[in-house]
Formats: sequence, structure tokens, C-alpha cells
Amino acid sequence: LTGGPPLNVLFAGRFDVAERQAWWNALRAAAPQCHWQRDDEPFDRSLIDAAVVANPAPGALAALPKLRLIQSLWAGVDKLLGDATVPAQVPLARMVDPAMNTAMAETALWAVLALHRRFFDYAAQQARAQWLPQAQRRVDKVSVLVLGAGQMGSAVAARLSAQGYGISTWRARDAVPLAPLLATAEIVINLLPLTPATGGLLGASFFAALPRGASVVNLARGAHVVDADLLAALDSGHLHRAVLDVFHTEPLPSAHAFWHHPQVTVLPHVAALTDERSAAQVVAANLSALARGDVISHAVDRARGY
Amino acid sequence: LTGGPPLNVLFAGRFDVAERQAWWNALRAAAPQCHWQRDDEPFDRSLIDAAVVANPAPGALAALPKLRLIQSLWAGVDKLLGDATVPAQVPLARMVDPAMNTAMAETALWAVLALHRRFFDYAAQQARAQWLPQAQRRVDKVSVLVLGAGQMGSAVAARLSAQGYGISTWRARDAVPLAPLLATAEIVINLLPLTPATGGLLGASFFAALPRGASVVNLARGAHVVDADLLAALDSGHLHRAVLDVFHTEPLPSAHAFWHHPQVTVLPHVAALTDERSAAQVVAANLSALARGDVISHAVDRARGY
Repeated sequence: LTGGPPLNVLFAGRFDVAERQAWWNALRAAAPQCHWQRDDEPFDRSLIDAAVVANPAPGALAALPKLRLIQSLWAGVDKLLGDATVPAQVPLARMVDPAMNTAMAETALWAVLALHRRFFDYAAQQARAQWLPQAQRRVDKVSVLVLGAGQMGSAVAARLSAQGYGISTWRARDAVPLAPLLATAEIVINLLPLTPATGGLLGASFFAALPRGASVVNLARGAHVVDADLLAALDSGHLHRAVLDVFHTEPLPSAHAFWHHPQVTVLPHVAALTDERSAAQVVAANLSALARGDVISHAVDRARGY
Repeated sequence: LTGGPPLNVLFAGRFDVAERQAWWNALRAAAPQCHWQRDDEPFDRSLIDAAVVANPAPGALAALPKLRLIQSLWAGVDKLLGDATVPAQVPLARMVDPAMNTAMAETALWAVLALHRRFFDYAAQQARAQWLPQAQRRVDKVSVLVLGAGQMGSAVAARLSAQGYGISTWRARDAVPLAPLLATAEIVINLLPLTPATGGLLGASFFAALPRGASVVNLARGAHVVDADLLAALDSGHLHRAVLDVFHTEPLPSAHAFWHHPQVTVLPHVAALTDERSAAQVVAANLSALARGDVISHAVDRARGY
């Protein structure tokens, strides 16, 4: 931060106590020139220049007359865009964290290896004490479709391609027909942003367009999936397996059919956690840009939805 | 095969019907100049120049007076070396198949990703319908020790290193002390050849030398592990998990404690299956070398044991 008065920055969000403290420490260490305020202590709303937020309570960003930047700590901003109390005219930046991209690529690679090499099936066999080797397929015969070509989709596609998988990619904004790509995909990985155009995309017609025996990996948002349609496609035997990190309601309710479905792998929204230290560096860079009057990185296009 | 009479080659081994036919087709396609004989049909033992074998029945390689090469279809030759009916003076070559190295690297990578990112733990949580995200660690903080620096150990170390893991390697013949390497390893992957020097290496003192919470991945031979010591180290909580592809007796007996142990992943010896087509090319190259009088590739040093 060069020149001018220090920025007053509000840290607002819902965390458990340890998480809140870890973020608070990381942010202040990365941008010590700022005056930091936290939303669980009293502060003067009239002074706040910027807000660094993670799932803030509704209304937390209202009545901040000087607010010039909202910086999300999460990559997905669908909840912020759906909150009418978030001021619509203030620039909103989403998190693009290299460490999070790496973590997402690791999760996707683990899921693809486990599907390709049948390790989920071997786990089911182990539960039955069943010794049954299955045919081993060469990596270049396995076709993976990555939905989404942003920072995370690109990181996933590059990592899988480096292992030898056959990769296709699709993104919503190009308006390329999806069905022909689905028809040849054995594994689909969803990394789309959640927008009005992509919500519910993974429904009956999507699953029907996949070849029999295909698997679906959802690492984006629960609302991309029509749960009943996914269960029907698994139960009919059309789909082999679903690996799900995200759900309509989180934590996934204990009565939900996904928990105990033999063809579903449930992860507790851990595919890619934001890394406090690297994310704090990204925040500091944007606060510095704000102080200098430079362009904000990773600004959300509100019309597009991400 | 250039010049001279065609080689008479015996194909001998124990397979199921489909496997036997797949190998038979692949071998004849790769080396069509040879006269191929199969051990489940009558043949003239006095004519056989070379034998291509996979777990042959005891005595299958005795009384072959012209035999000049035994080519294993498997990478491990410990069973052949332990069979007194296998002629000791005939050169023995083990399989070194690039496709098998790739498959082994895939399995090792899957196991390491699952351990590093806690996916085995999440599977256990799913069985309890428990939503409990755990801390996410950066790949460069995870230390992996690869035992064995042959074709497969090297392929595994290279693949893991390319993902960012911190890799150490050790091989038995260098006589470097193992304990200091174990002391800093979170994950140990065994890819050693099975020899009198390495059998039982993964026993009580080995496990005790690992830090608390470490995990063991055995992709080599069951006889490397002292099963009772491994179970004790898991039950005491000193070790976090074992991923086992190989066992003293295979198939793993249904009463063995590994099948239902919550900290053990059992795979039915599928970490790296030999790929018929690429392995047949390796066989053809050695048969061609034999016909020309050239040096055989991947000849086993019987004194060393691999």
C-alpha cells in the first residue's frame, strides 16, 4: 500500500472460532498496513473502505457508505450474488488461490484414478471379503470431460492431461452443444460456476446423454445436480458411480439417500479448501490495488454470475 | 528374427481360459516368426529353444535340453527362483513393461493422494453419515519414502515427485541405513524385489522406526510384511493405515484379519497387471536378441535374486 491514508478493512464471515482466528492472523500478517476490523467486535461502519468476506451474515455488508471493494475468501460467489443486502454497485472479487487450484486438481485426480482403476469397486469387494481382480485399462483409453474452464477447471484438465487421460472441456458461455461431448465421456467432472444457466444442469437429460457405465464427479455446487435424477440414473444402472463433494444442503442431512447409497461417494465439502496463507496474499494484492487505484483482480461480472 | 532357423518357443503358465487365449494371441502376433507351442497341448520337448512363462507348474521347465532363455511375463521372479525344477544355468529374464510401470505409478499415486487428502477417512465417515471436514495439507509438506529403485520404484518416485510430494528413495543393495529415512516418512511405499535379504523387512522394528501416524503401502510381495507385526502397529495406533495389494497367500484367505480391519485397504493384486500387448513386444525383442545372439535384456542376477 503506497501513499494515501491506510484502508479500513472489515473482516466479516461465519467460521468456527479456530478458523476465524487463523484467517484473522493470516490477513493481518499479509496486509499489516491496513486498519483491520472484525464483525464480531464493535466498529465504525462509516469508515469501512473494503470488506473481506466468507459467507457473511445477511445484512453484514449493508450500510457501509464508503465501501469500494468486496473481496470473497471463497471461489464461489453465488451466495453473495443471491443476497439482496450486498450492495450491487460495489466491485466484488472472488478468490483465485493457486493453492486451492492445486488442491482441486488433487481431488479430481484421486477421483479419476479411483474410477479408472476400479478402486471404489475393490473397496466394496473388500467389505464382502471378495477377491476379484478386474481388467486393467490403459490411461489413454479413459475419456474425461471437464465442465468449466476457469482457474479450477483449467488446473484439473491440465493435471489429468499430464497423467495421460483423454480430456475434453466445455464451458457454459461458449454455447457449444454439450450432448456430443457427454456421449463419449466415461467420467464427467463438474467445475462450473453456479449461475441461473447452470443450476440443475446435471439432471435427467444430462445423465441420459452419458454412455452407460459413466461416472459423475461434482466438485462445484450442490445445486448443479438434480438429486432425484442422479439417484434414478444410478439405481437404473445407467451411471456407475457419483463422487460428490457439494450438496443442496450442507452438512448433508443425515436422512439423505446419498449417505448410504453404494454407488455414491460423499465428501464433506473438502475438495479444495482455501489456504489461509496463500489466500491472504491474494487479498493483500487486491487491497493494494484498491489503495493505488489500480484494477482489481478476479472481479465478478454480475451479469454473467461469476 | 533375422537369419537362422526359427526359434521354437514354449508358452507355459497357469491362467484362466480367457487370459491364456489373450496372451497366446498377443505373443504370436508380436513374434510371428517363432514356432509357438503351448503347454496345454502336446509338443516335442527336445526342440524348445525358449520358454515364455507366467507362474508355470513345477516341473514345466525341466527336461528341455535345448532351452536357452526363460522369459517371465511377470516382473517378480521370486517364485521361479524358488522352484528347484527351473534349470539354474539357463538365462532368466524378468518382465519390464512400460505399461506396467505406468499402472504401478497410478496405483501408488491414488494411494498417496487418498492418504494425504484423507479420502480413506472420509469413506469411513460416510459409513457413519458423519460430516467432518479435516485440515487440508499442502502437497510439499507430505514426505513419501519409496523402497526400491528399479523400474517400478523409479516410475513411482518420478510420478509422485511430479505432483509435488517430497520423495526419498532407498534400495537394499546400497546398504544405506534405513531407520533415518523411516523416521521422517509419513507414507512408505514398498516396491522392493523379494529376496532373502528383504523378506520380512516390514516388521516390528521397521514400523517402530516410522513416526506415529505414518501409513504403509505394500505393492511388492506379501512376504515382505510380517502380518502380525503390521496388525499390532495398526491396533496400537502407531500406524494410521496400510494399503496392501499383495499377501503371503493369494487370494487372501477369507478368515484373514486384513479383510475387515478398519485401517487396512485390501486390493486383489491389481496394482499393476502386465499389459498383454506391450509385454508381448518386450518378449519379442528378447526372442529376437536370442536369435541374433545378442545380449538379453532384463536378465536376472540369480545371486542377487532379481
